[in-house]
Amino acid sequence: MKPLILVTNDDGINAPGIHALAKFMGEIGDVYIVAPDRERSAVGHMLTMHRPLRVEEIRERVCSVNGTPTDCVAVAINKILPRKPDLVAAGINKGANLGDDVTYSGTVSAAFEGTLLGVPSFAISLAGEKPYHYELAEPYALDVARYILEKHLPDDTLLNVNVPNRPKESLKGIRITRQGRRAYDNAIHDIYSPLGEKHYWIGGGKPLWEQGEDMDMQAILEGYISVTPVHVDMTNYSALEILRKEWKNTRG
Amino acid sequence: MKPLILVTNDDGINAPGIHALAKFMGEIGDVYIVAPDRERSAVGHMLTMHRPLRVEEIRERVCSVNGTPTDCVAVAINKILPRKPDLVAAGINKGANLGDDVTYSGTVSAAFEGTLLGVPSFAISLAGEKPYHYELAEPYALDVARYILEKHLPDDTLLNVNVPNRPKESLKGIRITRQGRRAYDNAIHDIYSPLGEKHYWIGGGKPLWEQGEDMDMQAILEGYISVTPVHVDMTNYSALEILRKEWKNTRG
Repeated sequence: MKPLILVTNDDGINAPGIHALAKFMGEIGDVYIVAPDRERSAVGHMLTMHRPLRVEEIRERVCSVNGTPTDCVAVAINKILPRKPDLVAAGINKGANLGDDVTYSGTVSAAFEGTLLGVPSFAISLAGEKPYHYELAEPYALDVARYILEKHLPDDTLLNVNVPNRPKESLKGIRITRQGRRAYDNAIHDIYSPLGEKHYWIGGGKPLWEQGEDMDMQAILEGYISVTPVHVDMTNYSALEILRKEWKNTRG
Repeated sequence: MKPLILVTNDDGINAPGIHALAKFMGEIGDVYIVAPDRERSAVGHMLTMHRPLRVEEIRERVCSVNGTPTDCVAVAINKILPRKPDLVAAGINKGANLGDDVTYSGTVSAAFEGTLLGVPSFAISLAGEKPYHYELAEPYALDVARYILEKHLPDDTLLNVNVPNRPKESLKGIRITRQGRRAYDNAIHDIYSPLGEKHYWIGGGKPLWEQGEDMDMQAILEGYISVTPVHVDMTNYSALEILRKEWKNTRG
């Protein structure tokens, strides 16, 4: 039996990236697409609980949901697919999901939700500017998917894959990385409504990236495909011991 | 100079929990409240980038924002407060933020955003059912805030605090915990619109909690206040080494 693969994204069911990813995954498995009915970027790990969700079957094995990427994965796995899938593949996102942005990303959150529901998952993004050449991601998406299906992932861990959107011949292969930090500079702009009311618009600014050879962004800058293992358990275990000691001391 | 403390939440500016927290924080610092104009639960780490945000000054040092908790923290720190705050306090949430729910929580995400912006932060929630007795949280909110202001937190780490909503005399003090896992059972319901169209509604179900004395949920069940250090870096470092080795081996 071929593996059952759920493909989703946060750019919405009409984004070219998801259909590219579905095509690639179709080479190794039976694919279902369940994706938001419109763009749902930067929604983080948002779950819609205040209203019912509508699923529309666009054609066989292709459904849209009027919700977030997390909703799509939850509804697909629990209600739409014929059985629990063997893999969740989220993307191909138009634009990078690196460093702190991982926590805002709807695409990574979809893979997060798959992992929480016990299905091995990865997110894949094209890092760079328009025009996006989704075909660049094909060998790496397949490589990662095959790896996950054959080897399985460590517990409670998903893979966050970013492929540099640059000429194919300049790509240097996969580098296993960690999630870097970035700081944005001046990322909130003052703007005024037609009635002269002041508003703030978040976005833009010059990101300052943490340096280091094993950082996700650094890999991209050097032309590597970045693959980061992301853990759903966010406990800082080294802080745990420090806190336990200090808490006792200060209250001794 | 008294510490400057930003208080926010995800239940919205009109929720009693935020005003309780602001009162407690007022005992040790100068407090600003910047919170969503309405309930924004389960929005995860959502950042609003597709439209401008409006800030309304309700009274001195109390503002609402037509956005998410993450938006509130970003706009408050960059645009509203007179200087970078010494502490971000998010809550008091009506209902627990434990285990996997941490990643869906707007309250925890507000503390997450504070941490990303370099401000020590904590989230505090009342674990249990209505009616919520916010005054229960007072000594623990103060304890945690003082600890953070005096001792500082490990890098890139916030504290996620949950206080059991049960009789004061049965509370047993603070336990440092780690983020447990939970699985929901049957958490998506089929419902029908007045026109007979099938919909899905996410929510409910019986959570199955991971057992273990150092788990956050277990602490709550035993009557302890759970304090979990949460790391904004989600890299699974142990998986990093495994992947590096395996990736090399499988590719010859």
